Amino acid sequence: MEVERSTKKDDDLNSTATRDGSTEEEVSVERIFEASHEVPPPWQNQLTIRALIVSFILSILFTFVVMKLNLTTGIVPSLNISAGLLGFFFVKTWTKILNKAGILKQPFTRQENTVIQTCVVASSGIAFSGGFGSYLFGMSDVVAKQSAEANTAMNIKNPHLGWMIGFLFIVSFLGLFSVVPLRKVMIIDFKLTYPSGTATAHLINSFHTPQGAKLAKKQVRALGKFFSFSFLWGFFQWFFTSGDNCGFANFPTFGLKAYKNKFYFDFSATYVGVGMICPYLINISLLVGSILSWGVMWPLIDAQKGKWYSAELSTSSLHGLQGYRVFIGIAMILGDGLYNFVKVLGSTIFGLYKQFKNREVLPVNDRSSPNAVTISYDDKRRTELFLKDRIPSWAAVTGYVVMAIISIITVPHIFTQLKWYHILTMYIIAPVLAFCNAYGCGLTDWSLASTYGKLAIFTIGAWAGAANGGVLAGLAACGVMMNIVSTASDLMQDFKTGYMTLASPRSMFLSQAIGTAMGCVISPCVFWLFYKAFDDFGKTGTAYPAPYALVYRNMSILGVEGFSALPKHCLMLCYIFFAAAVIVNGIRDGVGSKWARFIPLPMAMAIPFYIGGYFTIDMCVGSLILFIWRKLNKQKADAYSSAVASGLICGEGIWTLPSSILALAGVKPPICMKFLSGSTNVKVDSFLNPS
Amino acid sequence: MEVERSTKKDDDLNSTATRDGSTEEEVSVERIFEASHEVPPPWQNQLTIRALIVSFILSILFTFVVMKLNLTTGIVPSLNISAGLLGFFFVKTWTKILNKAGILKQPFTRQENTVIQTCVVASSGIAFSGGFGSYLFGMSDVVAKQSAEANTAMNIKNPHLGWMIGFLFIVSFLGLFSVVPLRKVMIIDFKLTYPSGTATAHLINSFHTPQGAKLAKKQVRALGKFFSFSFLWGFFQWFFTSGDNCGFANFPTFGLKAYKNKFYFDFSATYVGVGMICPYLINISLLVGSILSWGVMWPLIDAQKGKWYSAELSTSSLHGLQGYRVFIGIAMILGDGLYNFVKVLGSTIFGLYKQFKNREVLPVNDRSSPNAVTISYDDKRRTELFLKDRIPSWAAVTGYVVMAIISIITVPHIFTQLKWYHILTMYIIAPVLAFCNAYGCGLTDWSLASTYGKLAIFTIGAWAGAANGGVLAGLAACGVMMNIVSTASDLMQDFKTGYMTLASPRSMFLSQAIGTAMGCVISPCVFWLFYKAFDDFGKTGTAYPAPYALVYRNMSILGVEGFSALPKHCLMLCYIFFAAAVIVNGIRDGVGSKWARFIPLPMAMAIPFYIGGYFTIDMCVGSLILFIWRKLNKQKADAYSSAVASGLICGEGIWTLPSSILALAGVKPPICMKFLSGSTNVKVDSFLNPS
Repeated sequence: MEVERSTKKDDDLNSTATRDGSTEEEVSVERIFEASHEVPPPWQNQLTIRALIVSFILSILFTFVVMKLNLTTGIVPSLNISAGLLGFFFVKTWTKILNKAGILKQPFTRQENTVIQTCVVASSGIAFSGGFGSYLFGMSDVVAKQSAEANTAMNIKNPHLGWMIGFLFIVSFLGLFSVVPLRKVMIIDFKLTYPSGTATAHLINSFHTPQGAKLAKKQVRALGKFFSFSFLWGFFQWFFTSGDNCGFANFPTFGLKAYKNKFYFDFSATYVGVGMICPYLINISLLVGSILSWGVMWPLIDAQKGKWYSAELSTSSLHGLQGYRVFIGIAMILGDGLYNFVKVLGSTIFGLYKQFKNREVLPVNDRSSPNAVTISYDDKRRTELFLKDRIPSWAAVTGYVVMAIISIITVPHIFTQLKWYHILTMYIIAPVLAFCNAYGCGLTDWSLASTYGKLAIFTIGAWAGAANGGVLAGLAACGVMMNIVSTASDLMQDFKTGYMTLASPRSMFLSQAIGTAMGCVISPCVFWLFYKAFDDFGKTGTAYPAPYALVYRNMSILGVEGFSALPKHCLMLCYIFFAAAVIVNGIRDGVGSKWARFIPLPMAMAIPFYIGGYFTIDMCVGSLILFIWRKLNKQKADAYSSAVASGLICGEGIWTLPSSILALAGVKPPICMKFLSGSTNVKVDSFLNPS
Repeated sequence: MEVERSTKKDDDLNSTATRDGSTEEEVSVERIFEASHEVPPPWQNQLTIRALIVSFILSILFTFVVMKLNLTTGIVPSLNISAGLLGFFFVKTWTKILNKAGILKQPFTRQENTVIQTCVVASSGIAFSGGFGSYLFGMSDVVAKQSAEANTAMNIKNPHLGWMIGFLFIVSFLGLFSVVPLRKVMIIDFKLTYPSGTATAHLINSFHTPQGAKLAKKQVRALGKFFSFSFLWGFFQWFFTSGDNCGFANFPTFGLKAYKNKFYFDFSATYVGVGMICPYLINISLLVGSILSWGVMWPLIDAQKGKWYSAELSTSSLHGLQGYRVFIGIAMILGDGLYNFVKVLGSTIFGLYKQFKNREVLPVNDRSSPNAVTISYDDKRRTELFLKDRIPSWAAVTGYVVMAIISIITVPHIFTQLKWYHILTMYIIAPVLAFCNAYGCGLTDWSLASTYGKLAIFTIGAWAGAANGGVLAGLAACGVMMNIVSTASDLMQDFKTGYMTLASPRSMFLSQAIGTAMGCVISPCVFWLFYKAFDDFGKTGTAYPAPYALVYRNMSILGVEGFSALPKHCLMLCYIFFAAAVIVNGIRDGVGSKWARFIPLPMAMAIPFYIGGYFTIDMCVGSLILFIWRKLNKQKADAYSSAVASGLICGEGIWTLPSSILALAGVKPPICMKFLSGSTNVKVDSFLNPS
C-alpha cells in the first residue's frame, strides 16, 4: 500500500489527518471484500462492548498525548494513524485470544474498526476543542497574572473539575445534532472528498485485507518499538530535572547565547515525531519564523529597551518585550486566519452556488473526486448501505433544540459574565457556521474551528463589554462556538469514513456521541492531573507553558479593551505583520503549488514568535530524519514513518502520566543536570567547596 | 572472508592482535597471486617513499590514540586492523590518483602494504612500551605526590622532551638486533604460529585480491563514518566541559550514588569501540571486577575508616582507602602475571626441549600448524623468498654490542640512580629474555613485556637500594628491559607477516627500525603535548589519570621499601588476592576452554580496582552492541565490527589533538554541564539568584 503523504493544518495547525485521500482506487475495494464473503453486520453489532472498551483505553492514552502537546507548544499533529493502528491491534489480539480459547462469538470487522477510530478521535478531539491549552485555561488567574491587563476577579475563573465537565457536556453535543440531517447531502449528493476521512477509510480497509493486515502488524511492531524507546527516554530524562532549567529539555546544544534566545535542541522525542508527521514546509516555516523573531526582531526590539518601553518592567510583562512577542504573533495568526476564512467561505459559497445551480458534482479545489462521472460499483454498494440505517431528521432537530435550551439555562450559571441572550444568539447562528465548517472541511480538509472561536471572542466579548467581565465572556463564548463547529466537521469526516467502510451512519453517530461523552469526562480529568501535579503550571518558560492560553486571553483583552494596552510601535508592527500574513498567503495561492511549496506559511511562522525556537529545531530534526530515510529507502520510509513518528509522540506523551503521578506524590527527581557558563561555574565551585 | 574473532591480552591487557590466525588456508594463496602475475618487487622497492610518508601520518594518528588510551585507563586494544585498513586505503588512493594522472611508476603491492603496517605498529608500539602511561611518567613529581612515600628529589625525574627522546633512542633498538639472527629458526624451523602476525598477513593478502579490495573499501567507508561520528561527538562533548566534573564524561547515568562509586556510563565512544574489539569475557571480567571492588569491597573497607586507617587522611593518600585500591590491584596483577610467566616460560622450555630433541615441528598449545606435515606450495614459495634476502648475523651482533655500549655509557647520565653495572647486567640477560618472549609470543600470542619490566623493577630497584634512589632506578630499569623485550617480539611477529606476504626480511627489518625511530620522536612529542596542555594531568579523578603510572611507581616502592607502607590488613588482603589470581588462572586452565569462558580473568578484574567501573560500563555497552548486531546479522557484524570499532576508537582519540591544542592556546570550553543533587541545586539556585 502506498499512500501519498501530506498534512492539512487547521488554523492553529491542529491537523486531524495526515494521509491524503487522493489515491485513486484502481481496483474495486468492495469487490475484494465481497469475494471474501464479507457481510457488514447490523449496526448494533458494529458497536460492540469490546470496541467501546478499547476505545476507552485508547482515549485515555491519546488524551494524555494531546493534552501534553496542547500545554507545551499547542501544535497537535494528527494521531489518526496511530489510533487506527492501535485500535486494530488491540481488537485483533483480543479476538485472536478469544478464538484460541474457542469463545469468539463475532469476528473483527472493518466496521467495528471504524467505530473505534471514530470514538477515539471524538474523545481525544475534546482535549483540543475543550480549550485546556487555550480559552478555558486562559480564564485562570495563572494566565491572567501574566497578561497584566484585566486581571480583576470578574475576568478570572479558575479551572475546576466540576464546572469543566458540566460545561463540556452541555456544549459538545450541539455540533453533532446540527449537521446530522445534512449527511446525505454532503456525502452522497455533493460527494465531498473529506481527505482525512477518506484516508482513514483507506487505512482501515487496507488493514482488513490479508496483505494489509500483515503490513499493519509490522507497523504496530515499529510503533511499539519507538513507543518504548520514547517512553524510556522520557523516564531517563526525568531523573535529571530536579529544579528549573535542569535536564535535557534545557540543553544548550548550540551554546548558551543561542539558548538564551531559545535556540536549542531539547531532546524531545515527541517533537521529533511531530516533525516527522508534519510536512517539510510547516517545519521550515516554523524555523524561519523562529529565526526571524528570536534571531532578528526580538534582539532589535530589546535594544530599544528604555526607549520604546520601560527598562524596569519584568521580563514577562506585556508592556515590555513580551508584549511585542505576543501581539505580533496574534496579528499574524489573525491575518492568516482571516485570509483562510474568507477563502474557504468563498469557495464554500461558490461551491454551493454551483451545486444548486447545476445539481451536479463539481471538481473542487483541484482534487477531483475519482468517482465523479460514472457511478462505480463501490459507490453503489456504499450508497446503498449508507442510506439503509437512517437517523430521522426530527430526532436531530429535537436533540439540537433540547440541548440548546438546557445550555442557555445552565451556561450563564457557570459563567455569570455570559448572558442567556449571548448564548441564544450563538445557537441561532451556530448551525450555519457548523455547516460552513463541515462543508469547507470536506473541500479543503481545513477545519477552521478556532477561527470561528476567535470570531466569537471578539464579537461576544465586545458585546458583553469591559465593565461586565467581557474578557471572560469572550473566552467562554469561544468555547461554546468552537465545540459546536469542531464536532460538526469531525462528525462529517467520520460519516465519510463510515461510508467508505460500509459502517452504518447510526453506529457512526452513536460512536461519535459516546466518544464525545468520554472526552467530556476524560479530558478535564487529565487536565486536572497536570494542573495539580506540576508547580509553575502554565507559566512562561516552564515545562508546561500552555502558550495559547495567554494568546487567547490577550485576544479577548484586545477585543474588549482595544489597543490601548500595547507598548510603543507595537500596533504598527502588528498591522505590518497582519498585512504580511495576508499578502504571503495571497502570493502562495497566486503562484501555484509549484512555487508555493517554497513560501513559508505565515501561521506556522507565528507560532515560535512567542514560545521560542527550540521545538522547531526538534521538528526540523524530524524532517531531516524522514528526508534521509526516504533517500535511503523510500518504500520503507513511506510504510513505517507514520508508525515510528506516532510511537515517538505517544511514548513520551504517555510518560507524562507516571510523571504527573510522581509529581502529585511529591517525588522529586534526584539530580539536576545544570548548564553553567565557564565563569559562573567557577563561582559555583568555590561556593560549594569553599576550601 | 571470514576471520575468527579473538583477542589476546598481554599482562596489562595491551593486546597487539585481534584476529586469530588459526583459519586454515584451504586454497593456496600464493597460486592465486601467481595467477595474477604478481612478482614481489626487490626489497628496496618494497620500502618506498610513499609507504614511509603514509606510515608517518598514520603513526602520528595512532600514537595519539594509544597515548590517550594509556593515559585514561591503560587498556590498549589492538589497532592492527585499522592500521592495515588505513594504510591500504591511503596508498590505494594515492596510486589511483597518480595512475589517473599517468605518472604512476610502481603499482601498490602487498609487500608495500606489509611495510606500512610494520612501520606503523612499531611506531605506535613505542607509545605503549615507552612507558608514558607507566614507568616513565611514574617518575614524575605529579605521581610521586600521590603516592606519599619516597617522594624525595632523588626518586623524582620530571618528564622532559630531551631526555625522553634520547632514552628511547638508546634502548629501543637493542631488541631488534637481539632476535634478528634467530628469525629463520623461529619462522621456518620451528614454524611458530604468531597468531597476530598471521592474522595481519591474512588481512593484507585479502586486501590485494579483487574481492578483498572491494570489502576493504566498504570497511574503510564504515571506519570513516564512525570515525567522523566519534570525532564530532568528542568535539560536541568538549563544549560542556568547562571545569572539573563537568560534561558527559561525568554523567551520573545510574544516579549520583552510583556515580560516587564510579559506576556511570561516561558516553565515551572510544571505550565503546574498545569493548567491541575486546572479547566478551574480558569485558565481563572488567565488570565483575568493578562490582566486586567498588560495589562491595571498598564500601566495606570504607566502613572501617578510623579503625583500619586514620579518618583524617586525604582521599588520595595511599595510607587510606586508596592504598587498599592500589595494592590489592597490584597483588592481583602480579599474581596473574606470575602465573602466566611461569606457564609461558614452562611451555617455552618444554617446546624448545622437544624442538631440539626431535628436530621436528611439534603441535604446540593445541594450535597445530596447518602446514606441519607436508610442505605446501605456499610454504615452499614463502620460504624461498624469506631466505633470499639475508641479514648477516655479524651485523646484528655488532649492532647489539655497539648499541649496548652507547647505552651503558649514556643511560647513567640520564638516570644517575642507575649505575653502569646495572645496565650491563641487564644487557647480558636481555637477549635470553627477548628470545623467550619472542618464542612465547609465537606460541601463545602473549607478549609478556611488562612482566619482564616488573621483574626489572623489583630486582634492580632492590639492588640499587632505597638510599640510592632505588625507586627511580627500578622504574628506569623497567624501561630498559621492557623496550628490548617488547620490540623483539614485535619484530618476530612482523617477520611472520612478511613471510606470509612474501615481503623481504630486509625491508621488514628496516621498516621496523624506521618505525621505531619515528616512534622515539613522535611518542615523546605527543606525550609532551598532553603533559603541557592539560591542567591536573596525571591526577586521580581527572580526565587523564594515567592510572598505571601510580601503580608502577608503587610497585617500585614496594620492591625497594618492602611492605611497611601498607595500611592495616592490606597485606593480608593482598596475599589473598594474589593467591586468588593464581588459583583462578589455574582453574581456568584446568577446566578446559568449554568452562573457562565463564570464569573471569583476574588480570582484567584488577584493572577497575583502582580506576573505577565507568569504562567497564562503556566496554560492556560495546559488547552488547556487538552481541545484538551479531544476532541480527552475523555476517555483516563479523565483516564490519572491527572497522566500526576502530572508527569509534580513532575518532575520539584524534579529537584529543585539537582538544590539546585548544587547551595549550588557553581556550576554555564555554559551558559546564553539571550534575547536582536536588538539595544542592536548591542551594546553588538561591546562591545564583539571591532575590
